[in-house]
Amino acid sequence: MDMAFPLAPLLMKLGMVSTSDHASVVSMNIFVALLCACIVIGHLLEENRWMNESITALIIGLCTGVVILLFSKGKSSHILVFSEDLFFIYLLPPIIFNAGFQVKKKQFFRNFMTIMLFGAVGTLISFVIISLGARELFKKLDVGSLDVADYLAIGAIFSATDSVCTLQVLNQDETPLLYSLVFGEGVVNDATSVVLFNAIQSFDLSHIDSSIALQFVGNFFYLFVTSTMLGVISGLISAFIIKKLYFGRHSTDREVALMILMAYLSYMLAELFYLSGILTVFFCGIVMSHYTWHNVTEGSRVTTKHAFATLSFIAEIFIFLYVGMDALDIEKWRFVSSSPGKSVGVSSILLGLVLVGRAAFVFPLSFISNLAKKSAHEKINLKQQFTIWWAGLMRGAVSMALAYNQFTRLGHTQLRGNAIMITSTITVVLFSTGVFGLMTQPLIRLLLPSSKHLSRTLSSEPTTPKSIITPLLENGQHDSEAGLSGYDIPRPTSLRMLLSTPSHTVHHYWRKFDNAFMRPVFGGRGFVPVVPGSPTDKAEKDLK
Amino acid sequence: MDMAFPLAPLLMKLGMVSTSDHASVVSMNIFVALLCACIVIGHLLEENRWMNESITALIIGLCTGVVILLFSKGKSSHILVFSEDLFFIYLLPPIIFNAGFQVKKKQFFRNFMTIMLFGAVGTLISFVIISLGARELFKKLDVGSLDVADYLAIGAIFSATDSVCTLQVLNQDETPLLYSLVFGEGVVNDATSVVLFNAIQSFDLSHIDSSIALQFVGNFFYLFVTSTMLGVISGLISAFIIKKLYFGRHSTDREVALMILMAYLSYMLAELFYLSGILTVFFCGIVMSHYTWHNVTEGSRVTTKHAFATLSFIAEIFIFLYVGMDALDIEKWRFVSSSPGKSVGVSSILLGLVLVGRAAFVFPLSFISNLAKKSAHEKINLKQQFTIWWAGLMRGAVSMALAYNQFTRLGHTQLRGNAIMITSTITVVLFSTGVFGLMTQPLIRLLLPSSKHLSRTLSSEPTTPKSIITPLLENGQHDSEAGLSGYDIPRPTSLRMLLSTPSHTVHHYWRKFDNAFMRPVFGGRGFVPVVPGSPTDKAEKDLK
Repeated sequence: MDMAFPLAPLLMKLGMVSTSDHASVVSMNIFVALLCACIVIGHLLEENRWMNESITALIIGLCTGVVILLFSKGKSSHILVFSEDLFFIYLLPPIIFNAGFQVKKKQFFRNFMTIMLFGAVGTLISFVIISLGARELFKKLDVGSLDVADYLAIGAIFSATDSVCTLQVLNQDETPLLYSLVFGEGVVNDATSVVLFNAIQSFDLSHIDSSIALQFVGNFFYLFVTSTMLGVISGLISAFIIKKLYFGRHSTDREVALMILMAYLSYMLAELFYLSGILTVFFCGIVMSHYTWHNVTEGSRVTTKHAFATLSFIAEIFIFLYVGMDALDIEKWRFVSSSPGKSVGVSSILLGLVLVGRAAFVFPLSFISNLAKKSAHEKINLKQQFTIWWAGLMRGAVSMALAYNQFTRLGHTQLRGNAIMITSTITVVLFSTGVFGLMTQPLIRLLLPSSKHLSRTLSSEPTTPKSIITPLLENGQHDSEAGLSGYDIPRPTSLRMLLSTPSHTVHHYWRKFDNAFMRPVFGGRGFVPVVPGSPTDKAEKDLK
Repeated sequence: MDMAFPLAPLLMKLGMVSTSDHASVVSMNIFVALLCACIVIGHLLEENRWMNESITALIIGLCTGVVILLFSKGKSSHILVFSEDLFFIYLLPPIIFNAGFQVKKKQFFRNFMTIMLFGAVGTLISFVIISLGARELFKKLDVGSLDVADYLAIGAIFSATDSVCTLQVLNQDETPLLYSLVFGEGVVNDATSVVLFNAIQSFDLSHIDSSIALQFVGNFFYLFVTSTMLGVISGLISAFIIKKLYFGRHSTDREVALMILMAYLSYMLAELFYLSGILTVFFCGIVMSHYTWHNVTEGSRVTTKHAFATLSFIAEIFIFLYVGMDALDIEKWRFVSSSPGKSVGVSSILLGLVLVGRAAFVFPLSFISNLAKKSAHEKINLKQQFTIWWAGLMRGAVSMALAYNQFTRLGHTQLRGNAIMITSTITVVLFSTGVFGLMTQPLIRLLLPSSKHLSRTLSSEPTTPKSIITPLLENGQHDSEAGLSGYDIPRPTSLRMLLSTPSHTVHHYWRKFDNAFMRPVFGGRGFVPVVPGSPTDKAEKDLK
């Protein structure tokens, strides 16, 4: 790191990574060295209950921004120009795929309806409140020229919760219900926000009537269903190919390469057909962990488990490091410096709207969700509702990427109104990640002091990437043995049961179907022949 | 794949991947799908003794090129513009790092002097012969305007053997001596070619005298030593950080991420200081496998082993797929089509020079190398010399990248002479990889029919990535137990021994130093405390 700094004056003329400029080599060196520093410092701060890797990366990014600002004599604070493509094509897919790959499937599907309610309906409520609120409140501030599309875009931008940060703050093992609700909501919410945003940019918004609204809703459901199907089909194809072709002889490298490439292909196919790549790659991850993962060698299993988690981990740190560094970009702040009060006002209004917008759907929708549930321990109590509300307040890289898309051209801000919106987005992201993010862990400890939670706090750090805490084999067991310590699931045997506990019954029939048809075709735990083509390292060694 | 083709007309206007154009999404889809197809088809053809993954990828690339050519009505044949950066910054580092990480260190260092002789002196001889030969022979062909620098560049371009293809054709377990010689030479040769090429572009070549030649040699040794040192130091730093910080508690994701990032950082640092990144990352790989790899958890070990091999595997297929696709680029062939005989003549001359240039150093240098060796089984016999000569005839992606750098601007060919050079390079690469590559395996079977080799042929396919054939633990054992079945190494005990077998004695003192100083500081096999911070998955689970 130190070696790179004498060359800092070069930083002024930096652009994209993909130029053969020597300056871009300098910036890549600094960036990679900073990533290493984030990992080491994050590890050292692991014991600290307030910190997590996201916040460490944000702070290191901010500090580096200051250093670069000083070296370049106030001309620049970042070493890479933020590119939406970098984010949406390279950084987001591994994060979301890994989330799907490591998610506890049982827990996720059990709460499927609630998750959909929060992710789709909740995001729409939040979007409407933020859009309308911003239009009403900004009028008094004279923010600059913003039209209807801009206000709707603001609604979509600030409805996108940060699932990356949520993953780092909540713990899948400690608070499984909350984790699956908040994280599942995050994934659906990301998709909803992106769909909303794209809809705003493509629809004619000069005259909104009921037919356009209907078209909008239809479009959303079409996108949701097709994206999910694409992900499921991609996952099944990968399982089928690996099961059929690799029967009798295995090659770990080919299996791992094929899994990575098929997962990425599913994302790119979704982008190709203008679907939601986030939803697709998430469901592809779920299917791959349920089928494909069981068809490969022991070595491939360990490798994919850790390699996907590592890629996701690096991508997360990369994003937060970048956001921290970019926050000080001088060009954006120049417009704002003449009227600092206005920027503070806009940021405060947006933060308030985010708080209100989220409260407006978490509590009512929790009430509706609770009505449908019979057993008391499945209901979401008030403390849990409060935690869900709080944990989803963070705004992150998706908001940044959408704001850049709407309010800038090629990373530069021309109009005063646009500059204010960009700086306000940065402020909201920094404030929500910093303040809300920092306070989430203590809040959970305060509100939900379960005995399990307290006993694990000292030995297991909530900031450690989740996948590693869960031992590898446990995942498979969870899959079959319910994995929900604390209460029993009644086996549904009659129509009365079907009506009272629909999701359990659906799950029961799904298991039957899975065992009778899906697993024999696509492989999966217990359905891969043991000899001689068994996917174990030992068998592989014998064959080779 | 099929889904992507109806959109083929879009392919005409494709550029770089990093544009937000929807067309680039199409091209990425096709490319990723083709990579998947290469893996699957490569696996199916594994039994075939003539094929390997490189040639499969080349052929698939060529076929795709034809299809795209038809769909775009003869306007374009490739879907990604070849970028030198893509190759040198993203694809080459994982391949070379993995080679260093998986190389049998003992064998490599035993033949160190021979490897250096072949890689450095041999490449220089080849370079001089090809440069002079091309200047003399091209005069009669009226090739277009080529100056002294161009001829020297041609020498450097066609001296770069293809270590990627060599890795796929030779087998580390079957022919360890040949593998280490040819592969080791390939790495040093890559570095030499790149150094030569850079020297040609920076030195004033209008008046070559002895002082410039001396400067040139000095420059080369400086680059070699500093690049190696940088790689070794980077590797040691990674070992030290992981050993010190992670004592007592481990996080697999962080370890894997840190290893990947440190390896990449070493490459980028070398590029930053205008050193040879290839040499740096190769030695970083060696040091990491000797120290760092032993300091991490069992999960990290399996993951890094396979993840590096997989990354390298994908990068290799990517390169060959691209080279195959790019071979049909219409723009380059337009200049040539008017005088097809000339292009064939130039290609033939270059192929002939490659054959002569390599023969001119392999046989004399083998003779010199044999003089220094006492025991008969360490000498390189004539059959082995022939195999070394043959296996190094392939020209690959490094030659392509250097040719693009010298003869094109932004991927387009303006001058007739340049266009002929590019098409000739493509022809030489295709021909040498296709013909020489295809014939190497049968040739080795014919010339070196060892019993071990024959018995393994049916069960172990030489085209399978090497790392997988070698079981994980075996690597560590090879390290300590010589791993050279067939003959014993005499333990040197006196000065007489030092004089007769210098490399063995150096090795003996290195082991002493390694055990007494290096391993206690940097970790390594047997020098990582077993309890309680033992790098095993079990201990990790207990702690968490």
